[in-house]
Amino acid sequence: MGEVLDTELCTTSDRAWTVLGKRWSGLIIDLLLQRPARFSELERGVPGLSKRVLGERLRELETLGLIVRHVDPGPPITSTYALTSRGEALRPALDALRAWASESPSAEEV
Amino acid sequence: MGEVLDTELCTTSDRAWTVLGKRWSGLIIDLLLQRPARFSELERGVPGLSKRVLGERLRELETLGLIVRHVDPGPPITSTYALTSRGEALRPALDALRAWASESPSAEEV
Repeated sequence: MGEVLDTELCTTSDRAWTVLGKRWSGLIIDLLLQRPARFSELERGVPGLSKRVLGERLRELETLGLIVRHVDPGPPITSTYALTSRGEALRPALDALRAWASESPSAEEV
Repeated sequence: MGEVLDTELCTTSDRAWTVLGKRWSGLIIDLLLQRPARFSELERGVPGLSKRVLGERLRELETLGLIVRHVDPGPPITSTYALTSRGEALRPALDALRAWASESPSAEEV
């Protein structure tokens, strides 16, 4: 079957999929690529995503260094979430993925 | 907080994440972007992926129109999996994602 498959890429790619493969994480980053947003805006932005799960995902993305939380002292106190440079670096990949998803399914033939 | 977030993109992006967000699916496509491969090659290519789950993922990707299975009459009978044009169209996105994942974590500061 020709040359051996390069399986090194699995280690690298797996890192990306572990981060983005979690339900909603990619969508949250997609929204933050538009501009920093408040918790309530993200909640409205992703239909079907509960407050609890959104909170979890945001904490995970913060731990991974992809987003930061800014606390606005208020009143009222509000939190705004923004991408870090590492999170922002996902833009080309997520743009390409969105372009792919929006292509007509008529391109699906072999 | 400025203009309203465009949540239309969620519908589009969600389609991509539903396909690729499943554990292993992205990696399998990554491998097939190198060249068509046999079941056993994919099995060896993704450490930790069982025969059963690989079979499931391949059937899902086939149903989604991203890969096709070619049966080589043999003997011995073997199956080779290849990307369709729709699967191949994921190349720019997956290349960008791999590039992102391989970047040094020192880029992680805010």
